[in-house]
Amino acid sequence: MFSGAIQMNFMGRDIVSIEDFSQQEINHILDIAKTMEPLAKTGSDMLKGKILATLFYEPSTRTRLSFEAAMLKLGGANIGFAEPDFASVRKGENLADTIRTVENYADIIALRHSLEGAAKLAAEFSKVPIINGGTGAEEHPTQAFTDLYTIRKEKGRIDGLKVALIGDLRYGRTVHSLAYALALYDIELFLVSPETLRMRKDVISTIKNKIPVTEDANLEAIMPKIDVLYVTRIQKERFPDATEYAKVKGAYKIDLKTLKNARKDMIILHPLPRVDEIASEVDNTPLAKYFQQVHNGIVVRMALLSLVLGAIK
Amino acid sequence: MFSGAIQMNFMGRDIVSIEDFSQQEINHILDIAKTMEPLAKTGSDMLKGKILATLFYEPSTRTRLSFEAAMLKLGGANIGFAEPDFASVRKGENLADTIRTVENYADIIALRHSLEGAAKLAAEFSKVPIINGGTGAEEHPTQAFTDLYTIRKEKGRIDGLKVALIGDLRYGRTVHSLAYALALYDIELFLVSPETLRMRKDVISTIKNKIPVTEDANLEAIMPKIDVLYVTRIQKERFPDATEYAKVKGAYKIDLKTLKNARKDMIILHPLPRVDEIASEVDNTPLAKYFQQVHNGIVVRMALLSLVLGAIK
Amino acid sequence: MFSGAIQMNFMGRDIVSIEDFSQQEINHILDIAKTMEPLAKTGSDMLKGKILATLFYEPSTRTRLSFEAAMLKLGGANIGFAEPDFASVRKGENLADTIRTVENYADIIALRHSLEGAAKLAAEFSKVPIINGGTGAEEHPTQAFTDLYTIRKEKGRIDGLKVALIGDLRYGRTVHSLAYALALYDIELFLVSPETLRMRKDVISTIKNKIPVTEDANLEAIMPKIDVLYVTRIQKERFPDATEYAKVKGAYKIDLKTLKNARKDMIILHPLPRVDEIASEVDNTPLAKYFQQVHNGIVVRMALLSLVLGAIK
Repeated sequence: MFSGAIQMNFMGRDIVSIEDFSQQEINHILDIAKTMEPLAKTGSDMLKGKILATLFYEPSTRTRLSFEAAMLKLGGANIGFAEPDFASVRKGENLADTIRTVENYADIIALRHSLEGAAKLAAEFSKVPIINGGTGAEEHPTQAFTDLYTIRKEKGRIDGLKVALIGDLRYGRTVHSLAYALALYDIELFLVSPETLRMRKDVISTIKNKIPVTEDANLEAIMPKIDVLYVTRIQKERFPDATEYAKVKGAYKIDLKTLKNARKDMIILHPLPRVDEIASEVDNTPLAKYFQQVHNGIVVRMALLSLVLGAIK
Repeated sequence: MFSGAIQMNFMGRDIVSIEDFSQQEINHILDIAKTMEPLAKTGSDMLKGKILATLFYEPSTRTRLSFEAAMLKLGGANIGFAEPDFASVRKGENLADTIRTVENYADIIALRHSLEGAAKLAAEFSKVPIINGGTGAEEHPTQAFTDLYTIRKEKGRIDGLKVALIGDLRYGRTVHSLAYALALYDIELFLVSPETLRMRKDVISTIKNKIPVTEDANLEAIMPKIDVLYVTRIQKERFPDATEYAKVKGAYKIDLKTLKNARKDMIILHPLPRVDEIASEVDNTPLAKYFQQVHNGIVVRMALLSLVLGAIK
Repeated sequence: MFSGAIQMNFMGRDIVSIEDFSQQEINHILDIAKTMEPLAKTGSDMLKGKILATLFYEPSTRTRLSFEAAMLKLGGANIGFAEPDFASVRKGENLADTIRTVENYADIIALRHSLEGAAKLAAEFSKVPIINGGTGAEEHPTQAFTDLYTIRKEKGRIDGLKVALIGDLRYGRTVHSLAYALALYDIELFLVSPETLRMRKDVISTIKNKIPVTEDANLEAIMPKIDVLYVTRIQKERFPDATEYAKVKGAYKIDLKTLKNARKDMIILHPLPRVDEIASEVDNTPLAKYFQQVHNGIVVRMALLSLVLGAIK
């Protein structure tokens, strides 16, 4: 593509699904995120007077605090709720009404919801931009941008890498958004998961049209060649019953022994929180980048907020 | 009244009950609210350094966020709690002690409480101004100011209008504050509700001394002549039992058919959240003003905060 | 000690335990707190751009709001959570991971936790300073600084005073931190409590090495000579069973009769919330300083935040 000629404008745009973005747009977001690194330290008045509403129908302290910190570092302010059973919902209000209410209080809304499609619905009704903070089992675009930013920052590039996604690939919403995003690049993808936690067929067939995907890969066999090991938590609350959870919990655990044949420059990512799928002995190795990933989530969200609110182009 | 001669000073004043305000004072608050409209867009530093404590013993996301947004738009900041079972209460602390504690943290307190008289009690103990954010089944003065502001903004005046209050007139706290406020103006009032949800006798007799009130009005019959249709939610949590709730739920529902003979310039208000007492097909008609009402709640609260904190006269 | 020669630097320091501080350091904190008194009224931009994360695993509205108000009055901002069952914990995350996450969002963390040692553990993992907002049954250093500040402010000095601690000396975390702090000064200490709520032996033996301590003192007997009466709530939630609680509740209640022989310049302190261990008739006597104590908690926390964040030396 001829980069000079295409105009990108993120002002007022909803961030609902990673699938709404071209590679060129994603690269632009990552570029802007990089310019946010110094501002994350010094602070900025770029969004002074702007208000972000964080509407978290499903608890996620991590994502909520990341959005709030990003807003504060840009000079903006926050309102919102963090309880799944917040007042208006209990009183029977539907999402569309809540959005048409909150759009009066805030310049932008970050939404977390357990239902697929909630962010899309919100965006249809809202006069202010909606940022999807995680909905259903499929969409978590700001985490995917964070993951890509971390890969590019740590490896210097995204194209040409071999990436393994490991753990719960069925119920983990971050891996779906990430898989769609990676498929826009020149990536070789390996999927490693227990039988019952395999990635859904429709997702796989979509990305297989774009990049080489090895399903049901053997972790030990691929370990020597992969550049990025993306580990996910096996989410108890996504399981229909406790027995199924118990069976797979602990499987595919990453420890120093698992990593014996890993490349010296491989990086390990994890959307966090982790339970015990990465042993703490791995934390101090140079491979572990999951806490840096948290920092990167801030600059990525700073970029998205300033782009969507028109403070930057 | 001779407007030039009377001195009004809201600084340090508690906003406990709509009945504490003269028509002249209410008009002044609505005038100031109008001057807040541009500041609601641009923001202001009028209350920089000031802190609002929102003490919500009863959940109300809408009212809490409205107060917080108003404070932020004026450059102030917020602290508070939104959970009914907040820590100090659970430990057995009484309201007077909580107020004498929080007055040290904040310049002004917005209080929501399930008990009648809680705001009045708080005001007696507090060194900083108390704004009633809804107490018991009777008082919700900031909503009443919002309703009046919306009527004046949309109809150009309050005097001379025919207003119908419909739905739950017994347990809905907003209609009580609004009825008292309307009775200060030249209003003809119509009450429309199921038998078990009629407005309390003492409230009716008070306002009947001031304005004409038609009790138990027939909605279809009055529809062609009313200027303001004020619809309220039938609040499940106010009912002694589920059977009584089920009986009246859905009665008096407003839809396009109900509105067939309405005046073209009639406006429909609702304090929100609604459940299904207004059909969504009404939302896109020019009559529907309930989402604008939400916006108006912000400028009204901006006016109250800046008046009471002495930033404006 | 030769005050001019010793360099004190609080920047980046964790505030975990009162036992980590020398008398000289405590005096410096109290001096700085005094300089915060005018700023508590006017506000300041001293911490503009800085973010405090309040991580309250155990509910404490009072302490949380005090920290947040202190931060706002210095121009900083707040993020955090106030629910004991916050999202990441429910998902199985350990404290070390939460800290290594939140340190990316904030410049300083205030932690409240039910477990002994949680603040110490957090400090070991955190890149940003940790302030202990109350952990386990032992540590509540910011309350102890507040208590000392109140004593010095009201009595003009700390040395030479007779102090009585009354009520629940076993489960109340504030009395432990305070006892350790008082032992650094020339204090005569009296302990007054029911048999089952006596101060733990190890705490007593530590402070007995430094100052005279009268255990199991008789309140009526010592009343005429004590300068500071420090009353604590008998904390229901610390009791193994309700029967034991019922037995001691109401014992050692302070009312006007109890105070008949008190010195005219005696002061009564209480960390609040109180239930009924101080009768409300005492509130309006000049002896009652427990609400002033709340105000003092703000300036003390302002001092700690500005010292630890390096805005002041």
